[in-house]
Amino acid sequence: MPAPLEFYFDFSSPYGYIAAQRIDQIAVRHGRGVDWRPMLLGAVFKVAGSKPLTEYPLKGKYSTHDFQRSAREHGIAFNMPATFPLPTQGAARGVYWLKQVLPEKAVPFLKAVYAAYFVDGKDISSPEVVADIAAGLGVDRNAFLAGIENPEIKAKLREVTEDAIHNRGVFGSPYMFVDGEPFWGADRLDMVDRWLQRGGW
Amino acid sequence: MPAPLEFYFDFSSPYGYIAAQRIDQIAVRHGRGVDWRPMLLGAVFKVAGSKPLTEYPLKGKYSTHDFQRSAREHGIAFNMPATFPLPTQGAARGVYWLKQVLPEKAVPFLKAVYAAYFVDGKDISSPEVVADIAAGLGVDRNAFLAGIENPEIKAKLREVTEDAIHNRGVFGSPYMFVDGEPFWGADRLDMVDRWLQRGGW
Repeated sequence: MPAPLEFYFDFSSPYGYIAAQRIDQIAVRHGRGVDWRPMLLGAVFKVAGSKPLTEYPLKGKYSTHDFQRSAREHGIAFNMPATFPLPTQGAARGVYWLKQVLPEKAVPFLKAVYAAYFVDGKDISSPEVVADIAAGLGVDRNAFLAGIENPEIKAKLREVTEDAIHNRGVFGSPYMFVDGEPFWGADRLDMVDRWLQRGGW
Repeated sequence: MPAPLEFYFDFSSPYGYIAAQRIDQIAVRHGRGVDWRPMLLGAVFKVAGSKPLTEYPLKGKYSTHDFQRSAREHGIAFNMPATFPLPTQGAARGVYWLKQVLPEKAVPFLKAVYAAYFVDGKDISSPEVVADIAAGLGVDRNAFLAGIENPEIKAKLREVTEDAIHNRGVFGSPYMFVDGEPFWGADRLDMVDRWLQRGGW
């Protein structure tokens, strides 16, 4: 089986959420899997010299409009959260912990976290809230809460984020690699689809 | 005939150049024209709190790669100019002067200016160079050089740019309006096409 699509994202990224609803279908169509890699966009922005879209004059207003329009085009539920952006360490660590101990729960968990934030407006910066989400998927709540405080898991998230920035040039979310070829942004999913179809150009 | 697509761009914008090669075909398919509106991205960036893509860490390298990849996908000739970005006042004023005195030459002129910069690497910041381009289209060279120094034409470019920023929320190039709906970026042309096809969503 060919290499999975590498999907870097932050849980506080609206375009990351939108792309997360579409990437599986594109990957499956081309016989690929998806390697989900949550990272911390705050650390990325420091190196990239940028900040959340909504904090830029002019671009902020357009972006909020475009989040909703982009979701609507694809029939994706989306409600701009009242609190935005949020710290996402707990949610991201939860994914890496699940990948180690209950890998089959990692993708359902990350999809549920994204929906909790961008559909239901829940405070996913709270370890309690993300632990509830994990518990809803049959994960032991106390084990999860201990897992996201595990130094090895904390280090894993830092390593993924640092590697993304310094070795792979990641500067935003979502950021995808197809056999090493980089694609930035939810609006590049159709290009990813064509790239896979044509085998590049 | 329904309203034309409004196409705001700066002559120093690689994605503006790429979109300029594709917008006519999309407009024609939906029975629309294109209203070409060169503006000054430097003034836009001051208000928008941004700068040329190539000047950002990480994003700069990706962008240069993506200019070439995006052009290649659509069979568009593209060579990253050695001097980038450039001041584009003369070229932009040339468009507004031609719109007044020789409107049928305005679009051939702007396409030729874009090609001179992004294919042939010419210094389109030079009034002499853009006057040569106009002359090659049968425009009187001296009249052109006088036209781009005309205070009314200078004011027109300032007005378009200020109106774009302050009344229409334009923060980058290319920036398009379809019946008032804003679309930013060459990679949104397919969305523009679908928007016209579906009559919005």
